[in-house]
Amino acid sequence: MNISLTETAEFLKNHDNYYILTHQSPDGDTMGSGFGLCYALRQIGKNANVLCSDEFPKRYHFMYEGYEPQKFSPETIVAVDVADKKLLGTKLIQYGDYVNLCIDHHVSNLHYAERLLVNPDAAAACEVIYQVLGEMGIEFTKQIAECLYTGIATDTGCFKYGNTTQLCHIITAHLMDCGIRMEQINREMFDTKSKARLKVEQHINSAMEYYLDDKCAMVAVTLDTMKKTGLALEEFEGIAGMSVQAEGVQVGVVIREKDKGKFKVSMRSASDIDVSAICQKFGGGGHVKAAGCTLEGPLDDVKLRLLSGIAPAMGIDLWLA
Amino acid sequence: MNISLTETAEFLKNHDNYYILTHQSPDGDTMGSGFGLCYALRQIGKNANVLCSDEFPKRYHFMYEGYEPQKFSPETIVAVDVADKKLLGTKLIQYGDYVNLCIDHHVSNLHYAERLLVNPDAAAACEVIYQVLGEMGIEFTKQIAECLYTGIATDTGCFKYGNTTQLCHIITAHLMDCGIRMEQINREMFDTKSKARLKVEQHINSAMEYYLDDKCAMVAVTLDTMKKTGLALEEFEGIAGMSVQAEGVQVGVVIREKDKGKFKVSMRSASDIDVSAICQKFGGGGHVKAAGCTLEGPLDDVKLRLLSGIAPAMGIDLWLA
Repeated sequence: MNISLTETAEFLKNHDNYYILTHQSPDGDTMGSGFGLCYALRQIGKNANVLCSDEFPKRYHFMYEGYEPQKFSPETIVAVDVADKKLLGTKLIQYGDYVNLCIDHHVSNLHYAERLLVNPDAAAACEVIYQVLGEMGIEFTKQIAECLYTGIATDTGCFKYGNTTQLCHIITAHLMDCGIRMEQINREMFDTKSKARLKVEQHINSAMEYYLDDKCAMVAVTLDTMKKTGLALEEFEGIAGMSVQAEGVQVGVVIREKDKGKFKVSMRSASDIDVSAICQKFGGGGHVKAAGCTLEGPLDDVKLRLLSGIAPAMGIDLWLA
Repeated sequence: MNISLTETAEFLKNHDNYYILTHQSPDGDTMGSGFGLCYALRQIGKNANVLCSDEFPKRYHFMYEGYEPQKFSPETIVAVDVADKKLLGTKLIQYGDYVNLCIDHHVSNLHYAERLLVNPDAAAACEVIYQVLGEMGIEFTKQIAECLYTGIATDTGCFKYGNTTQLCHIITAHLMDCGIRMEQINREMFDTKSKARLKVEQHINSAMEYYLDDKCAMVAVTLDTMKKTGLALEEFEGIAGMSVQAEGVQVGVVIREKDKGKFKVSMRSASDIDVSAICQKFGGGGHVKAAGCTLEGPLDDVKLRLLSGIAPAMGIDLWLA
């Protein structure tokens, strides 16, 4: 059942003993939503804990500085930024059928919760949580403000992506008044990389190949390369975006060998070209600007097949080129 | 003479035939201020041109799409984002002593203009221009809004740096209502790099060395390397920031050989360490988080001297290490 902002605020004020569930592989938005809501509920005298199937990442240490789980029997289950109960992960899936309230921003939310407050226009669940806390009359402490700011900033690539809303900016202007350590948080979120990540990026940049009048950038990482160079698989998140960073590139492709001779292809568009349509030809799919497919065969064949799919979208006839 | 926002608006409404001067090596803020103001003045029937000692960079093409210089005799000279008349550059220095109005945000402004509107708390001159145009009752067209947005976004690293003000966010929320191509502008400003730049970044990353328990990152680029690798000198802007991007690094150093055996050192702090104090020991200076100096000698000596200056600030005794 979809409920309104006011109904959500009423529900939260009228219940107690909260387990707040975040999604597995937690990001800044689910963490910020979870801890922001938890501190707000504690502020009005409720018992509340934040739960996650994975450990809280050190990256978000400032959100749970001084946080201690409370001892109580859970009565109310709230999920934040969790579009599908499957995303609760191994430890929390036990609560999947008993979620009393879900607060989210994914248009794809599967309505698994008893009550759902979802705003698909919001860039981040933290944007929705901010509105709920406002409706509840919560005081935006520095701690709450830092949680919400981080969710908004990370989900928008620091206000860079197309999902950034006017409300993101307006909320941030308010949160800056609450003493948030904006500069430090931004540095940790956006300007600091692990050495393992730097190594992966370096490899991707140096192995990048340019085709089709330099309008297509393509890079392949084989199992062999992974083994030889010691690149860390967990550091590949979001790496596909690197394929379209060079000036003039319209379509970028990252090919990663998952099993021997089986390649996972991530395609990005930095132009009007619909990469989802291209990937569909190869049995894949996705969005207009970000899509993928899986191809088998020798790597050179895979590259050639991809190029023959991409070239027509650029108005290039491969066989005349 | 310092004048107020209202006085500035009155001045602009009561004069005509404007030459708007931008600074040399134009960035997004001086360009956005110049064109934003120019379109605003034309909107209320004035003659106005934007001038620069350098060519308008292609990077900011969307600011001057459809712009044509008008023919008229200049009567009023306005400089935007120009802290020092010397920054007008070779072509525009002729106007240096005749600037009727300067609109700026640099605390270091040298008061060379007849009238000065300066707000040192503003992150960008475009933030000040926005307020002036508001005071003048200008309609914020898409074109004007894109100019001002770009100045604010580029001067704050897309709302990432510590200089970002609440007003930056509030203004942006408004400008988003004026039809700006936010996503496209952000992509061009922040996610697109020339191949020459990618090559420089790649070299810097691969040549980075770590010292002092990995708390100090240091990279040197010699004249020899520049020659061998064909790195483009003009692509080194802002490269010093890369020295502090690895997790755990407190002080980063980029050493560039300017003349044979003469090294320009750029030092950055990602901690409480005051790199300006360290650089002062070597006859240099700067800010707490960004400073520099020049050292001579064989490169290995230069590195060792720098490390011996940095180590004590980290509480590390080099000779015991």
